[in-house]
Amino acid sequence: MTVRMKAVLEYDGAGFFGWQIQKDRRTVQGVLEETLSKRFNRHIAVVGAGRTDRGVHASGQVAHFDCPVNESVDSVYKSLNSMLPEDITFRTLEKVSGDFHARYSAKTRRYRYEICLEQSALARRYCWQVQDELNTVQMRKALMYLPGTHDFKPLAKLNPDVPERSEYRCTVYDASLKKKGRYIIFRITANRFVRGMVRAITGTLTDIGKGKKEPDVFKRILDSADRSLVSKLAPAHGLFLEHIEY
Amino acid sequence: MTVRMKAVLEYDGAGFFGWQIQKDRRTVQGVLEETLSKRFNRHIAVVGAGRTDRGVHASGQVAHFDCPVNESVDSVYKSLNSMLPEDITFRTLEKVSGDFHARYSAKTRRYRYEICLEQSALARRYCWQVQDELNTVQMRKALMYLPGTHDFKPLAKLNPDVPERSEYRCTVYDASLKKKGRYIIFRITANRFVRGMVRAITGTLTDIGKGKKEPDVFKRILDSADRSLVSKLAPAHGLFLEHIEY
Repeated sequence: MTVRMKAVLEYDGAGFFGWQIQKDRRTVQGVLEETLSKRFNRHIAVVGAGRTDRGVHASGQVAHFDCPVNESVDSVYKSLNSMLPEDITFRTLEKVSGDFHARYSAKTRRYRYEICLEQSALARRYCWQVQDELNTVQMRKALMYLPGTHDFKPLAKLNPDVPERSEYRCTVYDASLKKKGRYIIFRITANRFVRGMVRAITGTLTDIGKGKKEPDVFKRILDSADRSLVSKLAPAHGLFLEHIEY
Repeated sequence: MTVRMKAVLEYDGAGFFGWQIQKDRRTVQGVLEETLSKRFNRHIAVVGAGRTDRGVHASGQVAHFDCPVNESVDSVYKSLNSMLPEDITFRTLEKVSGDFHARYSAKTRRYRYEICLEQSALARRYCWQVQDELNTVQMRKALMYLPGTHDFKPLAKLNPDVPERSEYRCTVYDASLKKKGRYIIFRITANRFVRGMVRAITGTLTDIGKGKKEPDVFKRILDSADRSLVSKLAPAHGLFLEHIEY
């Protein structure tokens, strides 16, 4: 008998080669499996809701795993948090039914991207420092083209192992911008994301804010699939996997 | 002819052995003097409003220096920010009159201490993670004993080079606590601070919040000068020099 557990995780992406386990590289999934396997004295597999790339943070990643003993959640939670390195934290842990699946049961995922409009020694690890003036009116206009179901292939890092075009369809539910002091916070919610998509959108959005591109560029990218209209990816360290809805 | 400049500085304390210049150690003052001296091709001395200890951050430290050439402030500001390492930033720079002195002209200094009530991979560098319940009612009661002019020697790291008792007198103008989500933010404003004072107060305050000490312990410490009543210093990485008033 095992008990399925759902964990909400926070991690600082700087010290990891992304989520997904890789040989001889420090990854979030790798460190989690290692810690859980040590705790329960047998191999424990961890399934995450989304695979964050190298350097990307999470404040609300969700993972599930099967606990081989029926211990109190509180005791498992406390011991895991004390065993984990300081750059991964279990925010919450709860027992769920055996058919809960962190990846397949997820309805929506939300990412947050933080831009700091000043150079900042204190914020530098968790935002992209953009010192140009950004026109948020133009940026908000541009975001109106994102909601809906589109083929996001032109905004994806291409993966030669995934040839089918249908793999790139995502439904964006919401894309919004908030100005808060010296920060611009961009949030996007979708049923799923393709690789590099939020960083490609943020990079392009920032060029729209600078006046280098027109707000309708997203429409043109999605209509024409013209990758040359897409700007350079925004850096990983401004991006956070913020919330998964089930 | 030189032009005096006033800079408001932000820095991440983690990479420095504090503010004050020391031989063979990376300090904020040391890096600033090195960068300015390189920029102006001669030795430039930098005077700070307060000497932050090793590991302590600043979001509003103030420093002055004398600029040997009458260049535009904007050009000096931009070139210094591009020359400085990423853990020091000039927030603002302005020309001031020659009698302005970052340390002696300062009327009040304000420090902020951040406590996070959860373990947090993302906040860990900039707060003290305290996982016990803290009673903020008791903590606020305790803070009422701080305003006024007191001899803060029992709350100071002792310095054998400073024998005079009068050196430990400080006037606290304000000490307040704010709860914001999972954070407790403590701010204290005084004409001056003695070494280690904010961290000693925060450590003791946290023990009051845990119920280990009574709220009147600050009164007893200040009345009796009994150092044994003072708790262990709160760690440096939760402390920020936030604002200097002139």
